This record gives sequence, structure tokens and C-alpha cells, in this order.
Amino acid sequence: MQSADVIIQADYVLTMDADLAVIEDGAVAVKGGRIAAVGKADEIGKRYTAAKVIGGKGKVAFPGFVNTHTHAAMVYFRGLADDLPLKVWLEEHIWPAEGRWLSPEFVSDAVELACLEMLRGGITTYADMYFFSDSGARATKKIGMRAVIGAGVVDFPTSTGRNADDYLANAERLIMEWRNDELIVPSVADHSAYACSPETLQKSAELAGRYGVPLQIHLSETGWEVGEVLSRYNKRPVVHLASLGLLNENLIAAHCVWLEPEEIELLAATKTGVSHCIESNLKLASGIAPVPRMLKAGIHVSFGTDGAASNNDLNILSEMSTAAKVHKAVSGDPTALSAKQAMLMATRWGAEALNLGNMTGSLEAGKTADIVLADLHKPHLMPIYDIYSHIVYSMNASDVETVVVAGRVVLDNRSLTTADESEIMAKAVEWGGKIRKQDSGITDIPV
Amino acid sequence: MQSADVIIQADYVLTMDADLAVIEDGAVAVKGGRIAAVGKADEIGKRYTAAKVIGGKGKVAFPGFVNTHTHAAMVYFRGLADDLPLKVWLEEHIWPAEGRWLSPEFVSDAVELACLEMLRGGITTYADMYFFSDSGARATKKIGMRAVIGAGVVDFPTSTGRNADDYLANAERLIMEWRNDELIVPSVADHSAYACSPETLQKSAELAGRYGVPLQIHLSETGWEVGEVLSRYNKRPVVHLASLGLLNENLIAAHCVWLEPEEIELLAATKTGVSHCIESNLKLASGIAPVPRMLKAGIHVSFGTDGAASNNDLNILSEMSTAAKVHKAVSGDPTALSAKQAMLMATRWGAEALNLGNMTGSLEAGKTADIVLADLHKPHLMPIYDIYSHIVYSMNASDVETVVVAGRVVLDNRSLTTADESEIMAKAVEWGGKIRKQDSGITDIPV
Repeated sequence: MQSADVIIQADYVLTMDADLAVIEDGAVAVKGGRIAAVGKADEIGKRYTAAKVIGGKGKVAFPGFVNTHTHAAMVYFRGLADDLPLKVWLEEHIWPAEGRWLSPEFVSDAVELACLEMLRGGITTYADMYFFSDSGARATKKIGMRAVIGAGVVDFPTSTGRNADDYLANAERLIMEWRNDELIVPSVADHSAYACSPETLQKSAELAGRYGVPLQIHLSETGWEVGEVLSRYNKRPVVHLASLGLLNENLIAAHCVWLEPEEIELLAATKTGVSHCIESNLKLASGIAPVPRMLKAGIHVSFGTDGAASNNDLNILSEMSTAAKVHKAVSGDPTALSAKQAMLMATRWGAEALNLGNMTGSLEAGKTADIVLADLHKPHLMPIYDIYSHIVYSMNASDVETVVVAGRVVLDNRSLTTADESEIMAKAVEWGGKIRKQDSGITDIPV
Repeated sequence: MQSADVIIQADYVLTMDADLAVIEDGAVAVKGGRIAAVGKADEIGKRYTAAKVIGGKGKVAFPGFVNTHTHAAMVYFRGLADDLPLKVWLEEHIWPAEGRWLSPEFVSDAVELACLEMLRGGITTYADMYFFSDSGARATKKIGMRAVIGAGVVDFPTSTGRNADDYLANAERLIMEWRNDELIVPSVADHSAYACSPETLQKSAELAGRYGVPLQIHLSETGWEVGEVLSRYNKRPVVHLASLGLLNENLIAAHCVWLEPEEIELLAATKTGVSHCIESNLKLASGIAPVPRMLKAGIHVSFGTDGAASNNDLNILSEMSTAAKVHKAVSGDPTALSAKQAMLMATRWGAEALNLGNMTGSLEAGKTADIVLADLHKPHLMPIYDIYSHIVYSMNASDVETVVVAGRVVLDNRSLTTADESEIMAKAVEWGGKIRKQDSGITDIPV
């Protein structure tokens, strides 16, 4: 009889491993932050004892969701401006608000709220592109989430730098500070092929490669971007990045909406990670990424929520549901993007897209214990015929009960164990009041 | 000082009236099942006293959602078969399961679960098309929801009839039984222009017209339907119904996906009610209805969840969010289908589509008190800049706290006051076990 720290039991344990094994009346034994064993609850019970046993009847356990593209701190701009053309939204609302408000304190407070929202929706790992990244990393570490934190790189001045060299220096400082952390993976985050020069892109790739950390970028998000990059470099964005040597397993490309067949082949051949941000792309009318064709090409597409200012929540469950439905209609094929594929994209493929596939994304012995326990005993979740279908098409974020990250119970029956929720929410209300006052007139609600 | 039965207070009261008035720090006084007054909380407090005062800080109140197209009893087939072509799904899974299981008891038990799910998502009124309608009506009345209950009419035999005349007789019995009920509006529900002959359609319209009850129908849901009706009658479905005299304010047409411009004009000119079932249409790859064009034509489009077997929940909040996003991408216009329009479609326009506009759909003195109170103090709902955007893009069904139908608190802090929730869910689990056993093999989860 071996001792474990925690044993998690559930009616269904979705391992999301290579065989997509689903264990009914299953259990997961956790020890030292890692998964010690996964199997039938009675067998695990014979082999392990643990002081803490959670879950049981009416529960489902699955790997924590991986959100491969967001701007966490933007939760403070949630709903600041909606139903507007991208240019107006960005140039008249978001950028001015960022210019006015961004600071280490803003990012730190906002990221705590974002982490709370993500954990409550079953997300255990996220990839972030923003500024004041060190504050974001500290806040994430405090909450106890896993994240790939990218230091933003552009060619123009912002509150965190004057030019590309400043941003690259910020990124290198972030890497030196966090490269050996258990939860935080530092990263270089190039904004895009239109906001970063070829030289900046190559310097960024060199920096990320030198330290073996992920490189993030927005890629082919809008038709405008494709036209802009074409006019500047006479190459479409993906081809442009390929010619600069940026496409490889180390790159995570967000959006990838406007792709020619040869660009899909390039992304597949180079094993470039892709983050599909369906709800953001829909809401900003950016377009609909050719996900079924990317999947056919062998690309392991993952899900990104994007920032809460563009797609007003950080909810992978709804990204799965929306994507699995929209791609059926767009392709005219009701078998396109099945519930199982959506779950793979949200878990193991997401981890692989971030080069964390050896560490998280599935429930397998040896991997870090990033586990979600959700409640199935809800009116909207019964009866049960297919557990994948239930999670993808019927489950809501509020059905997530308990979340374990690196073996630590960070959300216990929907209560955060690592920080004071009421304080996090009070700060959000306070910041919101200040921002709303300053930016009044952008909403039709009298303030 | 007048006495009221209940006073509902909230940070925001969305009236959804003609002016779309939003009252901050507002209140609604309810008396005798109707709305006595709507206004600022302090003013209502000066004019009314009530034994029961609910809501307050951090809450939002709005009219109950109107679900204008569903098959409530199909919640028992939720997730029975997904990611399949419509024909396989319907002919190999849904119809056989219906043939095997439908009975008055099945419908009664299933409708109770459906009502519980709908109330928990803020739906106070729904329109139903199914069989054993009297059982559905009784179950809905017991739960205390408002519904337009349609007696299904087709030309082929089922467990409730041999031919159209049988179904029309069922419908007339339903009408005689329920025509004077406060909550239940009986209705005639023709399946479609391909499952009902012109004669059956005209008899149905005559019956509905004679008693002044709504006529429901599935219309232009799939490309196949359009081709079938064209080949039989040499007319597209909407034109076919127009030629039979079916298009008028009394008709509620579900789906309306495949429409030519002249058909949109016909629906607008005749003030025919339209139920947009975006999630079902996406998931079954039926297509995407031209909602922005219908709205431009002046059609008051509403939302329908369709049955939970096709779109695996009964959730108008997610229909709003999905529709508001998808139509932006499809039209390439990020201003298409604004959050405000989505809320109108989900409330007042839905009531108008069902000919209940004088009774429900907005918070106005004299209307019946169908009111939702939701909690805004959640991590995914802060900060707040625009309350419409928050409800449409960020709110989840689980944020709904208390629901009032005809002045009666039927859901109190998410607990059903009119029936035993645990009993309803126990029955669902029991029926599910039987159905899963019988239909095993349709899911890849070992049972």
C-alpha cells in the first residue's frame, strides 16, 4: 500500500491519452505534484491511501484546459466597447484605455481576476501576450496557475519601452527571472508581422531559441493584415514568417484565420502550434479559420479565448462548443470537429502547442497533476449517453467544482484556496469604477 | 402607500420597453401576478410596501426570456447521438428512440426536467412542438412556467395518431382543455411543408384561426427541405405556405434558414413570427439563417433553442451569445446583431412572435410579472461598462438566481419552489439508464 497526497474519484475519468481512454468509476492518485496512477477507483483504492479523497459519484474528471492565447489583464476592459468595427474598437477605445491605465499594479490586479475566472472554468494553463509581464507572472504564480507568460514586442513606443530593443531587453529579463520556475514559462511575444519588422521578428526568434522558450505571435487574423503584409513584403503572412525562419515547434501562432492551402502545409510541415480563437474572430468579424482543413493537414490546433475585451469571457468550454458547432455549419458537414476532437484541442493538443506536452494536457502517470473535477448532477447535464458530448455541448463553466494544478487544490468547491476572492473582486469593481468614469460616454448606460 | 406582493430591486432594471429604458438602482413592484410599477428603487419604495423584497445590490433584473421553438421532452435524448449527418441522426437514432419510448409518462417526466433547466437559465415562456401535448401542458403548469404548447400534426402514423385527422382532433381536444388557462396557451403544431399535405396545412390553419391560437411549423430548415417542396409543389417553402394562406401574425415559423429575398419580404409583409435556432442549425450543419437581412426587412426575429437532442441544452443566453457573434462573422460586419438587438429578440420580440406581446416580454406596468433576477457579483461579470453586453456576451445560465412567472417566485435562489428537484433529476437518471441500456452502442462510452 503506497501513500498519495490526494485521490480524485469520478464516474468518468477522461485521460485524453493516446488511446483516449475513458475510465468509468475511475480515480487518479496524486503524489508530489504529479500523477502517480490513473485507473479504476477500486484498483487505485487497493494500491493507494490518501489523507484527502475528493470527488466520487456524479463527478467527471479530465485534464485541465489549456488556453493557448489570451491577454489576461484585459479582463478589466471586458465589455468596454462592443459591436464596433475592429479599427474603431482598437484605436478609439482599447489603445487609449491601455495608454491611460496600464501599470504594474493594473496588470497584477487584473491578472488575479483573470486567473480566478479561468480556474472557475477549468483552465489550468494559459498563454499570455501582454505588457508588464513580470507583474502578470507574479500574480499567476500567487494564484497557483500554470502559464506561458509572453513579454510583448512591437516596434513602436508604449509604456514599457521605446523600441524593439527595449522590449527584447524586457523579454530577456523576464526569461532570466522565470526560466527555472515550476509554474511560469517565460516567453517572447511578437505582436504581429505588421507591428514587428523582419529584423525584430528574427531577433525575437533568436532570443527565444537561445533560451529554449516559446515564441508567440498573432498571425493572419484579419484580411487587412494579409493585405498589409503582402504590400510590404510581397508575401502572405505565413510565407513571410517562413522566409524569416520563424515557423517551428517553438512558435505558437494565434488566430490563423486567412490561410491559403500552401500556408496550411507550411504550418503543418513545421509543426507550428496554432491557437484557434473562434469567439473573438466571430465577434470582431475577423473571419472563420479553416480548422477542419488544418486538422486534416495534421496540425494540432488548440483553443485560445483571446482577451476578454474582444470575446467577453475567458471560457474554453464555450470556445469548444462554439467551434464544434460553427465548423459543422461552415463546412456543411455535421461530422466536422467532433466533441472528442474539441476536447483534444482543449487539453493535450493545447499543451503540445505550447511545448508542454510532456508535462500536462492529459491524465497519465508521471505528468504534473493538472486536473479538473466537475459536477454532472445538474438538470442541464442529464441523462448521460456520451460524456464527451456532455462536456463539449452541455457543460457550463459553473459546473467545474474543484481544480488541481501541479497537485495543489487551488479551487476547492469553487472557492479559491490561494488568495482572497472578495479582495480580488473588490479591486475589480474599484478599477472598473475609475475606468468607467474616465471613459464614460463609450457606454450607453448612464453613469 | 400601496401594498404589493413582491418588490424586486436591482442595480440595473432592463425594461426592454419601447424606449429600452434601463433603470439604475431600480425596482419592480408586483401585485396580483402583474407588474404594478417599474422605477427607481427609492421612488418605488415610497409608493409601495411588500412583505417580500428580493434582489438589491449586485443584481440585474430583466424580462424572462422567451424560447420560441423547442421540443421540451427531448431533453431525455440529450446527447443520445451527436456529430452525425441529419438523416442518420434522425432516422437511425432519434425516430427509433421516440418510437420506443414516447408515452404520456415519458413526456410528463421529461418536460419537468426541461422546465427546471429553462427556469434556471431565465426562460419564463417557451413554445413547444411535440406529442402527448396534454401531459406536457400539465407538467409545465405544475412547474409554473408559461408555454405555448403545440399538438403535433403530421400525415403519417405515430404513437398518438394514424393520420392528419387524428392529430387535428388531438389538437382540438388540447385547445378545448387549455384555451382559458392563465399559463398554458394551446396551439396547433404542423411539422413541416414536407410532412404535412397542403390540405393538412390548411385544415390546421383553419383550426388555429377558429380558436385564435398560434400555429407553429418548421420552415426552410434545410436545403433538402427546399428541394423537396420545390419538386412537389414547384414553389419554395415560404411561397408554398403563402399560397395556402398560412402566413400571418398567427404563425410562428421555426428555423427559416434557406430564404430568397422575396421570401424574406413575404415573412415581413405578413408579420409572420420567426424563431431563429442558431445553435441547432449550426450543429446539424443545416445552414445559417439570414438574420441581419430579416431584421432589416422589419421581421421581429426571436430565439429558439430547438430540442436538447439537436442542440444539447435549452439555454437562451448561449443562443444570444452565439447568434450575436456568428452573424457578425458571416456578414463581415462587427456591428451586425448588437447585444441590444439580441436581448430584444430574446424577450419582447419573442413574446410578440408568439402573440403574447401584450402580456409578457418587457417590464411594464400592467404586464404579467415574468421577471428574472441575476447575480452580477461574479469574476466573469466584472467590471461592468455595458449591461446589455454583459448579459449577452458574458452571463451564464448559472448566474440566474431568482425567477418570477405571473408574479409567483418559481425559482428562489436557484431552488425550484413548485416541485421536488431531486425527484425530477432522479427520474431523469432512471429514464436515462433504461434508454441507454436499450440503445447501447450508439455511444462509445462503455455502459
